[in-house]
Amino acid sequence: MERSPAMTSVDANWTEFHKKDVSEKLPFFARNGRLYDCLFAQQFDRELLTRLFKTADALREMTKKKEGMDYAGSLLSHVRAMLYFVQPSTRTFLSFLNAAHILGIRTSEIRDTSTSSEVKGESPEDTVRTFSSYVDLIIMRHPAPGFVEKTAWLMNRTNRPVPIINGGSGKDQHPTQALLDAYTLYRSFNGEMDNKKIAMVGDLKRGRTVRSLTYLMKNYRNISLAFVSPEEFRMEADILEFLKRHGIPFTETGDLRSVMGGADAVYMTRVQDEHDKAGESGAVDYSPFYFKTEHLKLIKKTCVIMHPLPRRHEIEPAVDEDPRAVFWRQERNGMWARAALMAYIFGADSKING
Amino acid sequence: MERSPAMTSVDANWTEFHKKDVSEKLPFFARNGRLYDCLFAQQFDRELLTRLFKTADALREMTKKKEGMDYAGSLLSHVRAMLYFVQPSTRTFLSFLNAAHILGIRTSEIRDTSTSSEVKGESPEDTVRTFSSYVDLIIMRHPAPGFVEKTAWLMNRTNRPVPIINGGSGKDQHPTQALLDAYTLYRSFNGEMDNKKIAMVGDLKRGRTVRSLTYLMKNYRNISLAFVSPEEFRMEADILEFLKRHGIPFTETGDLRSVMGGADAVYMTRVQDEHDKAGESGAVDYSPFYFKTEHLKLIKKTCVIMHPLPRRHEIEPAVDEDPRAVFWRQERNGMWARAALMAYIFGADSKING
Amino acid sequence: MERSPAMTSVDANWTEFHKKDVSEKLPFFARNGRLYDCLFAQQFDRELLTRLFKTADALREMTKKKEGMDYAGSLLSHVRAMLYFVQPSTRTFLSFLNAAHILGIRTSEIRDTSTSSEVKGESPEDTVRTFSSYVDLIIMRHPAPGFVEKTAWLMNRTNRPVPIINGGSGKDQHPTQALLDAYTLYRSFNGEMDNKKIAMVGDLKRGRTVRSLTYLMKNYRNISLAFVSPEEFRMEADILEFLKRHGIPFTETGDLRSVMGGADAVYMTRVQDEHDKAGESGAVDYSPFYFKTEHLKLIKKTCVIMHPLPRRHEIEPAVDEDPRAVFWRQERNGMWARAALMAYIFGADSKING
Repeated sequence: MERSPAMTSVDANWTEFHKKDVSEKLPFFARNGRLYDCLFAQQFDRELLTRLFKTADALREMTKKKEGMDYAGSLLSHVRAMLYFVQPSTRTFLSFLNAAHILGIRTSEIRDTSTSSEVKGESPEDTVRTFSSYVDLIIMRHPAPGFVEKTAWLMNRTNRPVPIINGGSGKDQHPTQALLDAYTLYRSFNGEMDNKKIAMVGDLKRGRTVRSLTYLMKNYRNISLAFVSPEEFRMEADILEFLKRHGIPFTETGDLRSVMGGADAVYMTRVQDEHDKAGESGAVDYSPFYFKTEHLKLIKKTCVIMHPLPRRHEIEPAVDEDPRAVFWRQERNGMWARAALMAYIFGADSKING
Repeated sequence: MERSPAMTSVDANWTEFHKKDVSEKLPFFARNGRLYDCLFAQQFDRELLTRLFKTADALREMTKKKEGMDYAGSLLSHVRAMLYFVQPSTRTFLSFLNAAHILGIRTSEIRDTSTSSEVKGESPEDTVRTFSSYVDLIIMRHPAPGFVEKTAWLMNRTNRPVPIINGGSGKDQHPTQALLDAYTLYRSFNGEMDNKKIAMVGDLKRGRTVRSLTYLMKNYRNISLAFVSPEEFRMEADILEFLKRHGIPFTETGDLRSVMGGADAVYMTRVQDEHDKAGESGAVDYSPFYFKTEHLKLIKKTCVIMHPLPRRHEIEPAVDEDPRAVFWRQERNGMWARAALMAYIFGADSKING
Repeated sequence: MERSPAMTSVDANWTEFHKKDVSEKLPFFARNGRLYDCLFAQQFDRELLTRLFKTADALREMTKKKEGMDYAGSLLSHVRAMLYFVQPSTRTFLSFLNAAHILGIRTSEIRDTSTSSEVKGESPEDTVRTFSSYVDLIIMRHPAPGFVEKTAWLMNRTNRPVPIINGGSGKDQHPTQALLDAYTLYRSFNGEMDNKKIAMVGDLKRGRTVRSLTYLMKNYRNISLAFVSPEEFRMEADILEFLKRHGIPFTETGDLRSVMGGADAVYMTRVQDEHDKAGESGAVDYSPFYFKTEHLKLIKKTCVIMHPLPRRHEIEPAVDEDPRAVFWRQERNGMWARAALMAYIFGADSKING
């Protein structure tokens, strides 16, 4: 279908904007000195992270009793959100949905574009603007890289913008996953985030979560990282450059046991074979990157074992019963961290942690 | 499958009822002098329209503050609704869903009949009656002409009827679309609906929205209509007869520019090629029926540009930034008009606009 | 995919548990002398049934007014439930969903596993544990026999269990259907459950509902049962043994008319041809097991006609208008009985019926 000239001019503006460095873009996605759209892990600085973690802590404490839950459920009872998840992701979807419900937000869902008007020749921008008409917040997961950012950019140019939260866009950005991972470290370390050694294990080349978490680590002092992976799936050069630039020391190894004794956290990941181009994962022996029951005696008493889930065989199920296995709590932390983020965006966090 | 004789007798009664003129049917779908089932645009008279518009206005004013939104959300918190949408329509679905949420209605959804018991050989009537068991209101969109009306008719014969709102039935009736279009005129004209010239542009032959809106126009005084379309898609004879019968003047033309200067509203529509039988739309040059940026200087300062959306190329995106382009507001007006309708049906409108 | 040894040990524990008699398992699914997970019809004894029926009665009385509905909606407003229905069943799903909404429970839905992480190689146990992270209650329907029970068993071994309600597991257990059937008898008999004659008609061999209801009947005194079916679909031996063991008299016949005069309830069922292995249902003449209008004069004035729905031709639609036809009320009773069950599990029933 032909494009009208005016649309092309919008597209040109977008292309120009999109090329900018993230740091230049941040003001466009903020309001009154406060994050408005949540698009990039880079939007979280140390102060904001601490604030969100404290809000999440206060919220889960408050909601242990019915009265507290009812109070939380009154905070954003005037807000309607749309979960626009056109890329399959049940767990992230449910985490956001229940986070919204905790705050009393009423929710609508788009899970599949095939029933939408896109089939009638509407532009994706019109579709999103239509859906935004009915709600006060959009939480969006989309397979196309940059689509969520473009939506936020377009919304901010209309006379009725609504905040956009990125629930995973393409294979690059998934800021709330980084948020929940950092929150899990925060809780596991009793709020002491500095001076930690973190081992990241597995398919580091293609794992979105380890990449994002690495970005967040620059907010803390005296962090050191150990990257443990098969030769084929080593952490990519851009991240290593980023670490050098910020003076964060790191090591790379293929020997999981060698880093176990010193780590304060071991972050396990599965092989991301859905990104295979020609079955390359099949040729890699991934078993040296499994956490087994026998490894429990090698890690520190205070070391925590994390995993973004879902897992396959990277962690033996019997490990789950060890108190240092925090990946189930990590899952649940995601819901609380996302609730804290929503409360913050709508300015209700001050009603939570006073 | 064979039909039992008793069922045939029900069907015979229905066929007889269905053939009646709409004016004869109206009492059957009313209770205590008040609309109960909302099935036809013809159910809206001037008085009811004004009442619904004022309710919608009051509701959106009230809900600008959290306390007002919470009050609105308490009005129908005792009501459970089912959105039975077995014909794809994400925007109408979301509009109704969020309208229901504004009033505190709790909602269930049927989006796809393939998972229902219909596969086990249940009659559609039994299926609908089953679903009605759990709720107090059904909002229904169905591809079969007359199905929504038949459901309302059947429900009214049971000892536990629930009101039915037609969210689009076959290609004929979509009363809440007409309602939101009229509401958009009402807001655009500051409540002065009489003495207006309205241009309707595009595929008038097959566009359900222009047909329904035309019906509603008989409620106002000194309206004149200009129908602008390709020769192939002229407004159908039944509507023209209707206008003659009610003494509403109209003109027909293929020249969009010729009507622009005099119009108080220009209602654009897309080509309805999903109704093509043999690709006939492909042979029509639709571009003379596009609203372009250059046309903005031809219309009156007070003229509004409407479109039921989704659009393709009928309106250039750059037009959106003109304050006379009201189609995005029109979309949102739909949610408020539908909320007003639901409040009215359950007698809660008096708690909104006093 | 290979299984890790630790998983095998979990599986072994489960296999051992699963083999136990239901009576031995009950304590594992109870807490503080109160049912926690609802898995088997055998968990309902007479006292619990009466309590649930009274709660359901009180709840429907209370909710006739808006204030009562709002009060009911506040009782479990702090609870989030997940409806995990990976087997198609719209009516049971809607019944549970609206029951939850009556109590103010906020709901999430899984209707289809194809979008979940199971596709990435996660074990079903991990998937369920993930989903449980976000909620306080899981209502589960699953095609695999024993899967719901296994989920409850696994959950009870974690440090954050949530109650599980069985919404239909495999072809054996559907305890809330038995509950609603018994509740319908209770209401139809004005609470007098003893000394009744109940005829069960149709495909008794494969009908899950008649089997479960039969189990519940042992809770009442001086019950007698008449099984009316084609020779091919007679009630199975295990149920007949159960009745003999508990001294409950029963007869078997192929002649529906012969039992009509004496019955206090006639429970009709459809042929379960979805369980056919080689189209065997096609060879059976099912028409002698239809309830027709002419039969209305053969049954007692107080006899009720039940059906779990959906129906095909087992009951003529004209029968619906007879006051003894209670199957539509039966459908609705399901919602109230399920709400009562949820209120009970969370200890809120005392706030309903004092």
